[in-house]
Amino acid sequence: MSVTAAKGFTAAGVAAGIKESGGEDLALVVNNGPRRAAAGVFTANRVKAAPVLWSQQVLKGGAVSAVVLNSGGANACTGPLGFQDTHATAEQAASVLGLGAGEIAVCSTGLIGTRLPMDRLLPGVEEAAGRLSEYGGEKAALAIKTTDTVHKTAVVRGSGGWTVGGMAKGAGMLAPSLATMLVVLTTDADLDSAALDGALRDASRTTFERIDSDGCLSTNDTVLLLASGAAEVVPDGTEFTEAVRTVCDDLAQQLIRDAEGASKDIRIEVRNAASEDDAVEVGRSVARSNLLKCAVHGEDPNWGRVLSAIGTTGAVFEPDRLGVAVNGVWVCRNGSVGEDRDKVDMRYREVGITVDLAAGPESAVIWTNDLTADYVHENSAYSS
Amino acid sequence: MSVTAAKGFTAAGVAAGIKESGGEDLALVVNNGPRRAAAGVFTANRVKAAPVLWSQQVLKGGAVSAVVLNSGGANACTGPLGFQDTHATAEQAASVLGLGAGEIAVCSTGLIGTRLPMDRLLPGVEEAAGRLSEYGGEKAALAIKTTDTVHKTAVVRGSGGWTVGGMAKGAGMLAPSLATMLVVLTTDADLDSAALDGALRDASRTTFERIDSDGCLSTNDTVLLLASGAAEVVPDGTEFTEAVRTVCDDLAQQLIRDAEGASKDIRIEVRNAASEDDAVEVGRSVARSNLLKCAVHGEDPNWGRVLSAIGTTGAVFEPDRLGVAVNGVWVCRNGSVGEDRDKVDMRYREVGITVDLAAGPESAVIWTNDLTADYVHENSAYSS
Repeated sequence: MSVTAAKGFTAAGVAAGIKESGGEDLALVVNNGPRRAAAGVFTANRVKAAPVLWSQQVLKGGAVSAVVLNSGGANACTGPLGFQDTHATAEQAASVLGLGAGEIAVCSTGLIGTRLPMDRLLPGVEEAAGRLSEYGGEKAALAIKTTDTVHKTAVVRGSGGWTVGGMAKGAGMLAPSLATMLVVLTTDADLDSAALDGALRDASRTTFERIDSDGCLSTNDTVLLLASGAAEVVPDGTEFTEAVRTVCDDLAQQLIRDAEGASKDIRIEVRNAASEDDAVEVGRSVARSNLLKCAVHGEDPNWGRVLSAIGTTGAVFEPDRLGVAVNGVWVCRNGSVGEDRDKVDMRYREVGITVDLAAGPESAVIWTNDLTADYVHENSAYSS
Repeated sequence: MSVTAAKGFTAAGVAAGIKESGGEDLALVVNNGPRRAAAGVFTANRVKAAPVLWSQQVLKGGAVSAVVLNSGGANACTGPLGFQDTHATAEQAASVLGLGAGEIAVCSTGLIGTRLPMDRLLPGVEEAAGRLSEYGGEKAALAIKTTDTVHKTAVVRGSGGWTVGGMAKGAGMLAPSLATMLVVLTTDADLDSAALDGALRDASRTTFERIDSDGCLSTNDTVLLLASGAAEVVPDGTEFTEAVRTVCDDLAQQLIRDAEGASKDIRIEVRNAASEDDAVEVGRSVARSNLLKCAVHGEDPNWGRVLSAIGTTGAVFEPDRLGVAVNGVWVCRNGSVGEDRDKVDMRYREVGITVDLAAGPESAVIWTNDLTADYVHENSAYSS
């Protein structure tokens, strides 16, 4: 159902010829109102792609009427001419849709450092506009794929007749990211941009910002939430935020499960931390240990590599009070050998690592993947 | 020549049966004086192995008469009993050598979380003591290997008849480390512990601390510098520090060239930084980008991944002034496309990446390796 699950939205996906493969590579999502409220969160990378710089400006206006998304090129590190390309894309969409360019967000994904083929992209925008449909959500989700093996969509229905829907591409996170993550969420709830912004930031913080496939932060990550108000319902704020969080969590899980080359999804739960920040710092450090990620790939419950990673953080803990469980078996207790590691069964795709910091009441969950020869292959051959 | 190149030192390496392979796994280095001055630098990991905790205490006394080193087990995360094992190792060496245990440093490397087989290790110490020789440096260097494919030694002769020699194992750095790095340096120069400490910290800072194979920080990293005074020469301070730096740099290069699974050695030079700290931060961020390391493995001059990594740092720079050269070809200028990437020849093992921050006069060089399927294989099979 994707971005057209919510009333008031139409979408399309077309093959504009940006990708050499000839597959779908251009998506258009249009908010037909009556509202055009919007919120967005963007990559924390200081090197930002042209479409990120553009869309951040658009969001400041508080209204987004349409989003143009392309795969096949990130339009990052392309200088002033790259920014002009993004501007021209928005102008083209504005022209064919009868809107102002300042209400058109743009998202791009693909190789960095290459100009987009505007001679194909601009006609693609016109073609997509001609194919807009309230059934176009799936097509749009397909058109933003790069190395994704599947397209990713999610929908939650709220009480009282409103809906949150969404689509995502990528296999990573907002910060950091494996490949660029692009997400468009839509709702027909009747909310203003400030309410959307609060819900989106709250939901992202514990979903997209807690998946970390390979520790690399993209120049293009963008998450947008658009509201049409077409359901004519003002939802309860808490219920709405939870609905957005559910959609974000669903999409985040789909991103992790489709991470490049991964054979295991690793859920790292950090318990008994002195603060939530400590729990996140420890979880992220464990998630970024290449040695641990290799061990999980080899189905080796190598808790020493977990402790090594914890030891690089500034979190509150005493080394001789640390505990680590792998799939429920506490292989490390009090910073030393615990239960028999042979009890650990790691044959399934999901692997749970629990870290006990024995330092307080807070906790957090970070998701990552294993490191595999397929990851190396995919990322050493990507641009050649 | 290794640690016995300097006068006043004897060494030995034996197969004590700690390694299941039956290879050499225990080394002993003895300083026969007349001085027993010493300095050391240790892992920054807050989870420290028992031998690190022990040796840090020994160094506080300012005198080291002998070093016992074992491969086949890191004695990390082994609790109070593991610390007792290290203590017993020092006591055994003290007993057979007629020294005090408080002057015996201990280094261990191998799997974390496993107790050492003391019933084999302690007789091994006695056997090694019986084989001490001024020609034993190579044997000692062999006995500390784990996944190293070659043993690593270096020697520099100073003017006036003094020498600095050394041995190393591992394929990483002091902070962080691929596998544990153990280094013992010896000199017959007549220097006290304070002078050694200054020279060692100065030399380590720009050598061992600037190699970063896989971003993982070991629990066991130890670098020791021992002085016997047997040459009866007090060297010029600057010349001595440069000699120590040369030996450290030589060993550091050997570590990088032997990094697990690596097919490329990557020299990252960061130029025109506002501060040396900025240069190091940027170099390390680039060195830790799995995406870049995969690209180099694929001989792909993917400068976009370099810019992505720079963008995650707090260094002073403007995105549109950044430059990146790969093997001398400035593929990125002013944050955008530069020279033709097809001009870049990446067929050789050493790959040079130059980053121009255009922000000041400082610079730094960080070394790393590519990320390969062999790395994944070696580290997913290591303990199984």
